[in-house]
Amino acid sequence: MNSYIKPGDNPLLTEERKKCQFSTDILAAFYHENAQKIKRRHEIYQYYLENKELHDPEPTEFMDRYHRLENAERKVSLLKKHVKKAGSPLGLHYTMMIPTILNNADDEQKAEWLPKAQNLEFIGTYAQTELGHGTNLRFLETTATYDPKTQEFILNSPTTSAAKWWPGNLGKSSNRIIVVARLISNGKDYGPHSFFVPIRDPITHKSLPGVTVGDIGPKFGIPTVDNGFLLLNNVRIPRRNMFMKNAKLNPDGTYISPKHAKLAYGTMVYVRAVMIRTMSHMLGLASTISIRYSAIRKQGEIEAGKGEVKVLEYQTQQYRLLPQVARAWAFEFAGRYTRKLYAQFLGGDVDVLPALHGVSSGLKAVVTHQTAQGIEQCRMACGGHGYSEASGLPQLFATAVAGCTYEGENMVMLLQSARQLVKIASDVRKNQKPTKQNPVTDYLYKTSAATKCKIDQTTDPDPSSVIEAFEHVARRLTFAAFDKLEQLKQRGISAENAWVQCGVDLRRAATAHTRTFIARQFSNGILEMRDLPVQAVLKDLLQLYLFYEVLECDGDLLYDGYVIGQQIEYSKNNVYEALRRLRPNAVSIVDSFDFNDRELNSVLGRRDGNVYENMLEWAKSSPLNKHDVMPFHHKYLGKMMEDARQQSKL
Amino acid sequence: MNSYIKPGDNPLLTEERKKCQFSTDILAAFYHENAQKIKRRHEIYQYYLENKELHDPEPTEFMDRYHRLENAERKVSLLKKHVKKAGSPLGLHYTMMIPTILNNADDEQKAEWLPKAQNLEFIGTYAQTELGHGTNLRFLETTATYDPKTQEFILNSPTTSAAKWWPGNLGKSSNRIIVVARLISNGKDYGPHSFFVPIRDPITHKSLPGVTVGDIGPKFGIPTVDNGFLLLNNVRIPRRNMFMKNAKLNPDGTYISPKHAKLAYGTMVYVRAVMIRTMSHMLGLASTISIRYSAIRKQGEIEAGKGEVKVLEYQTQQYRLLPQVARAWAFEFAGRYTRKLYAQFLGGDVDVLPALHGVSSGLKAVVTHQTAQGIEQCRMACGGHGYSEASGLPQLFATAVAGCTYEGENMVMLLQSARQLVKIASDVRKNQKPTKQNPVTDYLYKTSAATKCKIDQTTDPDPSSVIEAFEHVARRLTFAAFDKLEQLKQRGISAENAWVQCGVDLRRAATAHTRTFIARQFSNGILEMRDLPVQAVLKDLLQLYLFYEVLECDGDLLYDGYVIGQQIEYSKNNVYEALRRLRPNAVSIVDSFDFNDRELNSVLGRRDGNVYENMLEWAKSSPLNKHDVMPFHHKYLGKMMEDARQQSKL
Repeated sequence: MNSYIKPGDNPLLTEERKKCQFSTDILAAFYHENAQKIKRRHEIYQYYLENKELHDPEPTEFMDRYHRLENAERKVSLLKKHVKKAGSPLGLHYTMMIPTILNNADDEQKAEWLPKAQNLEFIGTYAQTELGHGTNLRFLETTATYDPKTQEFILNSPTTSAAKWWPGNLGKSSNRIIVVARLISNGKDYGPHSFFVPIRDPITHKSLPGVTVGDIGPKFGIPTVDNGFLLLNNVRIPRRNMFMKNAKLNPDGTYISPKHAKLAYGTMVYVRAVMIRTMSHMLGLASTISIRYSAIRKQGEIEAGKGEVKVLEYQTQQYRLLPQVARAWAFEFAGRYTRKLYAQFLGGDVDVLPALHGVSSGLKAVVTHQTAQGIEQCRMACGGHGYSEASGLPQLFATAVAGCTYEGENMVMLLQSARQLVKIASDVRKNQKPTKQNPVTDYLYKTSAATKCKIDQTTDPDPSSVIEAFEHVARRLTFAAFDKLEQLKQRGISAENAWVQCGVDLRRAATAHTRTFIARQFSNGILEMRDLPVQAVLKDLLQLYLFYEVLECDGDLLYDGYVIGQQIEYSKNNVYEALRRLRPNAVSIVDSFDFNDRELNSVLGRRDGNVYENMLEWAKSSPLNKHDVMPFHHKYLGKMMEDARQQSKL
Repeated sequence: MNSYIKPGDNPLLTEERKKCQFSTDILAAFYHENAQKIKRRHEIYQYYLENKELHDPEPTEFMDRYHRLENAERKVSLLKKHVKKAGSPLGLHYTMMIPTILNNADDEQKAEWLPKAQNLEFIGTYAQTELGHGTNLRFLETTATYDPKTQEFILNSPTTSAAKWWPGNLGKSSNRIIVVARLISNGKDYGPHSFFVPIRDPITHKSLPGVTVGDIGPKFGIPTVDNGFLLLNNVRIPRRNMFMKNAKLNPDGTYISPKHAKLAYGTMVYVRAVMIRTMSHMLGLASTISIRYSAIRKQGEIEAGKGEVKVLEYQTQQYRLLPQVARAWAFEFAGRYTRKLYAQFLGGDVDVLPALHGVSSGLKAVVTHQTAQGIEQCRMACGGHGYSEASGLPQLFATAVAGCTYEGENMVMLLQSARQLVKIASDVRKNQKPTKQNPVTDYLYKTSAATKCKIDQTTDPDPSSVIEAFEHVARRLTFAAFDKLEQLKQRGISAENAWVQCGVDLRRAATAHTRTFIARQFSNGILEMRDLPVQAVLKDLLQLYLFYEVLECDGDLLYDGYVIGQQIEYSKNNVYEALRRLRPNAVSIVDSFDFNDRELNSVLGRRDGNVYENMLEWAKSSPLNKHDVMPFHHKYLGKMMEDARQQSKL
C-alpha cells in the first residue's frame, strides 16, 4: 500500500515500505488537501525531470551568491513561461507588491500599476523595515515631504539608521518598489504611509540619482535572495505615487484620513496563515530526510552478535523524530482552520475576525519556534552527516528559523496574543460574558471547569481529556498573569510598566493558549478522514502529539494538583505506546508527505535511500576538489614544511 | 570601575558602563583564571592590531571556501613565527596528531615522528570516523592487512561506506595522517588500531598512488576547515608504522595484546574538559554581542511620549539573555573542576578516575546542547540583525552546535553517563556502600534525604536548598529508570532490549545528574572570589542560574510533591529578582569576559557600540555590491521585463 517503492531502491527502505499498514496515496491526498493536487504535483515534478534546463548546473550549495542569483534569474525566466508565480527573485513581487496594489491603491492607481505588475513590466518589493526600526513602525525615520509647488513628494533617509534594510529582492532585482515613509505635509507629520517609488532605470537598471541601493550581504540562510538596503536622498515622486485607497493627500497638501484604520489587518493574518503551512512543509521535509536516513543507517548492535540495527530502532531516536512528524500534521490542521476562517472573512463574515485575531499572532510564534527546533532535532538525529550541506538540513533550518523573526518577532507576537487573553480575563473577573461565540477563546470563560484531570491508564485515551488539561493550564496562567498585573497596578506601578514586569508570565500564558488551539484543530481535523487504516495512523500521531505536549508542560499541569505524578507516568506510557505503534509505518508516513527529491534537496533523504555512494559523489564534485593540490599550497604550508625540513638538516 | 570605556563610544554603552558596581578587571581575571592571562590577552590583541598582515583582507564572511582556506594558510604561516599552536589548518595536527604520537607511539617511533611533527616537517590529522560508522568504532571497515613477506600493512577501504569521512584538515592540508583500521594478521581480525600513513608526497603534495583524498564539501559551519574524505586502495606502509606503545605486531605477524586496555581514556576526558571551556567562551561571546546590542538598540516606548527604550529594559529580553551569561559562568566552573581532576589524575592520583568518568560524558552533552541553544536565543534576541552574518552569531551557532555531535554524539553520551547511574542504583538497592568517596555521585547513595524542598520566600536563598532539590530529582529519575529496567527484565525482556526501551528515561536521569554537578561546581566555584562587589555579582548570576534551572525542571520537582506550586512561585520571583539586580551591571559583566573585537567578529557586538554605521559599511563592501547592475541582469530579468513591455505595447 506504499506507492513509493521502486526497483533499485536501498533494500532497507523497501523493507520498511513493505511493512506499510495503510494507503500512502490516501494519506498524501489528505495532507495536500485532495488527490487532484497530488496528481498536479507529480505532473510538475515529471516536467521538471524531463526538462534539464530547469535543473541546477551543479548543487547550489557549491555556488557563491553571485552564481546562485544568476542561476535563480535564469530559472525564473524559463519558468515564467510555464507557471504563474515563480519564486525568488520574484518572491516579494508576488507576495507583497501585487497584494499591496490590490489592497491599497485606489482605482485609478490600480488601473495604472496592476497590469504592469502582473505582466512583469517591472519587478518590485516592499520596503518597510529600517536599519534602526523593525518591530515598532511608529518610529520609522524615512520621510516623504510633500512639496505643493511641484506636487511631488521628496523622499529622504535622514539618518544612517533610516536606511531601509532587509526587504527581499531589493538589493539587485527590483526597479519599482513600495516605500513606507512618514508623510509630512504643510509641516505636519502624519506617520507612516506607503509610496510607489522607482529606484532603478527601467532600461539600464542603473540605480537612479539620489538612490543608494545594494545587497545587505550574507545571512544565516536564504543565500539566493538579494535582501537589500536603500538610502534615499531628495528623491522626488509625483503626488499620485502615494497609495491612496485609504488615506489621501490633496494637491494643496490637505490630508484626508482613512475611513477604516485597520483595513490592512486581514492581509497580515493571511500571510501568517500561509506561513503556518510553509512551516508544516519544512518540518515535513526535515522529518522525511531524517526518518528515511534513520532507516538505512545502521549503528550499534542491540544484542551482541546479532548485527547492527537501524538507528530508527532506538527509542531515543524515535522520541526525537516522530514528534516532529506529528507536529507537521498538527500545524497543517491549525493552518487549514485559520485559512478557512480567513476565507469566511473574505466572504464577508466579519464575525470571525476576533477568532482570527485571537490565534494568528500566537500561532505564528509557536509554530515557527517548534518548526525550527524540530528541524534541528532532525538534523542532529542524523549525526555527523546532518551537519553536511549534503543533508539539506542546515539550509532548511536556517531558512525556517528566519520565520521566528520576520512577520512579527515571536516574543512580540506572544505578547500581542497575551493582550487579548488579559482583556478576556478582565471581562471574566467582571462577570461579563462574551458578546459573540469565539471557538478559539470561549474556554477562557468557563469558570466551573473540572479541577482534576481525567487522564488515566488507558492507552486509547479520548483527546478531549488532554485538550481540557491544556485549557486548564492556559486558563490558570492567563488569570495568574492578569492578577499579577492588577496587583502591580494597585501598588502604584503604571499599567505599561506592570506589563513589562509581567512579560515572561504573559508569554507563557500565550504559549499555553496557542497549545489548546493547535491540539483542538488536530483533534477535529482528523475526523474528516474516513479511511480506517489512515485514520488509525492519524490517531497515533495525534496521541503522540498530545502526550508529548503533556510532558512538555508537566510542571504547569502538576503545579496546582490538576494532574498527579501517576498521570504523568500514564502520559509517558502513551508517548512510548504511540512510538511503538508508529514505528512500522514511520517511513510510509513520511513518504506520504509526498516531497520529491527536488524539494527534499538532500542526499540523506533521497527516495531511493542510496545514500553513501551519493554522498561520495556529491563531495567529490564540490569546488575545492577541482584541485588535488591547492594552487596556494607551495606558497604557504608547503613552504613552511620545506623550511622546517631544511632547518632540521642543519 | 569598568575599564572598557573609551572616548568615541556609543553614549548608550558608556551610560551602561558608568553604572558598573564592581571592578571589571577583577571579574575578567577570575574568568580567565588570573590577571597575568588578561595581560597576555591584551598584549596579543595589541600585537594583532599593530600588524596589519595578520588581518583578514576583507571580512571572511565574504570569502568562498577557496579564499578562506588560502587566507587561513597565509595567516598560519605568519603566526607560526610568533605563537606556538596556530589554528586551522593546523588544528588537528596539534590536538590529535601530536597527542597521539605522545600517547600511543613507542619510544623509537616517538623519537622518529615527534620532532618532525613538532617542527611541522609534516602536517597531520586523525582519521577514524567513516562514511558508514561514527559512534560505533567496533564496526569500522577500513582494513590494515599484514603481509609478513614484505613486513608491510596493506590498507584498504573495502566499501564506499568505509571511506574515512570528516577528519578536519584531511581534505587538502595534511600529508601524514593517523588512520584507524582493523588490524588483520595471519587471517585473524584484531579490531581497530592506529597507523601512521603518508597520503601525499612530501615535496609535490600530490596524493600518493592508491590514495583518493578530498574535501567533503560545504557544511553548516566551520567553512574554513577542509574536513576530508579518504579512500585507500592497497596502500602499503611498513610494519613499524603501526602505533606500538600498547598493542604490538611482531615481524612474523604475531599479535601482542596491550597490557592496559583503557589507557587512552584519559585523553578523551581531557578533550571533553577542554570542550567545556570552549563552550563557555562561545556562550560568553554570544552573550557579549547580544547584551551590548540590546543596550544600544532602542525599540518601542514603554510609556507613551517618554521616548523609545533600550530593548534590554524588557523583562522578556533579560529572561532570554542573562541566563546565558549565568550558564557561561556555570560551564567555566564545571570545566575548571574537571580539568583539576584531570591534573590530579595526570599527577598519579588514579582515585579520581571514577569521578572524572562519572561526569565527562553527561557534561559534554548538556553543555554543548545548552550552549548551542543559548547562542540561538542570543541570536534571535537581536531580531533581524542577528540573522545577518554581520552579527557573527549565525557562524558562532553553527560552529558551537557541531559540538553536540563530535567527540561523542550527545544522546550516546547521556546514555553512557546513565550506565554509571544505573550501576550505582543497583549497588544501593543491594545496600552496597561506595568503595571510595566520589564527590560527583555520592549523593545518589543518600537514602534518607529530605522529601520536602527547603525553597522558601527568601530572595537571598542558600544555594544548597536548590542543589539538594536537583539531587532529589536526579536520584528519583535514576531509581525510576533502574526499577523500570528491572521490571522489564523480570518480564523476560533481555537486558539489552530493556535498555533500549528505557532510553528516554535514562537520558532524563543523566541530564538531571549533570545538572547537580554543574550547580555544585558553580556554587563552590564562586567561594574563591574574595572581592565583595564581584562576589555579589557572581552570587546574582548563581541565583539566576539555579532558579532558572528550577523552572526548567519544575515538572520533575512537583511530580512527587517534593516541591509545591508556591515554591515554584518563589523560584520565579527569585529569577525576576536576579534579573533586576543584574540589569545595571549587565554590560559590565559581559565586558568582563574580555573578548576583543577580533574574537567577537561581530558588527553588533563591537566594544564601541557604533553599530549602525558599521552595518552599512559592512553591507556596502559585500561582494554582490561590486556591481550596481548584475552583469547577467539584461540576459534574464531585464529581458523578461523588456519582453513584457513590448508585449503590452502590441
